[in-house]
Amino acid sequence: MDTARLKSSTWEGTKVLITGGAGFIGSTLAIRASERGADVTVIDSLIPEYGGCLYNLDPVKSKIRINLSDIRDSYSLRPLIENVDILFNLAGQTSHMDSMKDPHTDLTINCMAQLNLLEICRQFNPNIRIIFASTRQIYGKPAYLPVDENHSINPVDINGIHKYAAELYHGLYGKVHGIRTCILRLTNTIGPRMRIKDAKQTFVGIWVRQILEGAPIEVWGGEQLRDFNDVEDVVQAMLIASQDKNCFGKVFNLGSEEKVSLLKLANMLIDLHGSGEIKIMAYPPERKKIDIGDYHSSFARFKDMTGWEPALTLEQTLRRTLDYYSDHLSVYI
Amino acid sequence: MDTARLKSSTWEGTKVLITGGAGFIGSTLAIRASERGADVTVIDSLIPEYGGCLYNLDPVKSKIRINLSDIRDSYSLRPLIENVDILFNLAGQTSHMDSMKDPHTDLTINCMAQLNLLEICRQFNPNIRIIFASTRQIYGKPAYLPVDENHSINPVDINGIHKYAAELYHGLYGKVHGIRTCILRLTNTIGPRMRIKDAKQTFVGIWVRQILEGAPIEVWGGEQLRDFNDVEDVVQAMLIASQDKNCFGKVFNLGSEEKVSLLKLANMLIDLHGSGEIKIMAYPPERKKIDIGDYHSSFARFKDMTGWEPALTLEQTLRRTLDYYSDHLSVYI
Repeated sequence: MDTARLKSSTWEGTKVLITGGAGFIGSTLAIRASERGADVTVIDSLIPEYGGCLYNLDPVKSKIRINLSDIRDSYSLRPLIENVDILFNLAGQTSHMDSMKDPHTDLTINCMAQLNLLEICRQFNPNIRIIFASTRQIYGKPAYLPVDENHSINPVDINGIHKYAAELYHGLYGKVHGIRTCILRLTNTIGPRMRIKDAKQTFVGIWVRQILEGAPIEVWGGEQLRDFNDVEDVVQAMLIASQDKNCFGKVFNLGSEEKVSLLKLANMLIDLHGSGEIKIMAYPPERKKIDIGDYHSSFARFKDMTGWEPALTLEQTLRRTLDYYSDHLSVYI
Repeated sequence: MDTARLKSSTWEGTKVLITGGAGFIGSTLAIRASERGADVTVIDSLIPEYGGCLYNLDPVKSKIRINLSDIRDSYSLRPLIENVDILFNLAGQTSHMDSMKDPHTDLTINCMAQLNLLEICRQFNPNIRIIFASTRQIYGKPAYLPVDENHSINPVDINGIHKYAAELYHGLYGKVHGIRTCILRLTNTIGPRMRIKDAKQTFVGIWVRQILEGAPIEVWGGEQLRDFNDVEDVVQAMLIASQDKNCFGKVFNLGSEEKVSLLKLANMLIDLHGSGEIKIMAYPPERKKIDIGDYHSSFARFKDMTGWEPALTLEQTLRRTLDYYSDHLSVYI
């Protein structure tokens, strides 16, 4: 991996803004960017159903600026964005079921606020660089594997439709208004600081909670293949993309060569923890309608462009995740 | 064309709702549906910049219900939708330049109101049939010609992004909630009742005004190929689709075999009118960024499914359009 561009000197004094910066990925990014010398501000709404958690930022709380606000508050965004060099745009409603139950809220967060944010950039900070965190969810049920960036877009829920619209906004503001934007489509991202209270962010979160609490891991289906990225690898990818001029105006998948069935993943967790059991659950009908079967990503385009590839194996990720939550369980449940 | 399904008996007592029903296509549809015996209600906001014009409905004003309201008014929609058999969903912000200047308004009309409308259908009228009027604009610059429904989606403006999101909503509410929705992607639609005050709806509108007022026709570029549908053919397509169960859950292009350059079209208008001149205009830079070059549609999928094809030639359309506006110019400028 070409880490030369990530040396600390590049980041000294760089003004970084992270929306959703108290969340799982956002907080990890805030820590790593701050360690490299960046001048970091995070925005987070701390909506209880989402991923924001102030404890996530504990290691850097004295070094960064934490602005608690909602990206839907259009007036507060302007002064926060005006002087920023790099915006890591991670805030969003991410629950698929919630988007189906309350599509309006998903629209206001994932589209309206995004459009407003880009308008502020266009008007008041056109030199900004933006890394937008998108999701493999927009591909829907794969027509082929691994899924690359040319795969057709078939969102299976309102969340996917809105995330894709937000991608298109970022692309359009690049093409028409010259804003440098790069879109990263994340696959399943896991690791310390993820939400484990429930399955709203990732099913692996609730599994970690179940195993640490001595409850059976509830596996829905089980045969589906998935790929996983450690949050540190995802953060590394975002930092790299933000420094590489060839990444702007483009869309990239992240992903992993390592793909496992859900059942295999559950068994890996049990082996690493030393105990645990699995309870196979029947898919409820409303979930079946949006089931996508197997999924894994090709990240060849991003690897070819930047040299990035995952540094951590799935086993390493699961081990350090279990360790983190063994130490901090009470904070996260 | 299989006109059997369009015989009046099918329509007697059918409750039809048309959003944007005082507009160009909506009013023509209201007239034809009412003639067939349907019980027609139209909704229109009459926003001056859009296509709504009460005079358009003059031929049927005593036979239909005209409800002047904005589809963004969520509470008024429910009682209007609750007992409807067929919804022709035509209301929208359609100006591409306006969507770039004021993306927020485009979002509220083309996404938020659409989502709300579909939620009302899901909750209170799941047996409704919906024909959604979409646009060829979502394809962006063609990768090949004629453009069929498998062409990639590359919107060149905010309006295209939002129209595509609204398409995806309609598809999703079909797949997940069982609402019968059919999407028609319209190409350039022209004819009596189109907006001729300016080019907000179609450039052919302002050309008709210019030629009738003795001003030169302002042609931007001129070599670009386009296809055109007469509004009566488009209305026929919508009526057919609404009666054909095989059309639901699907997306269809409309279009024409006849494609002409803009310059040829301007000359056809001048020949039919008997006088006129052309002024070639240089493309302004902000327009050039979203220029798509040549465009024409394949409507083979819809023809194969329903037998529909355009009945009127471009010359017939232009002739009857000039006749209509010669008689009614003062009403429309």
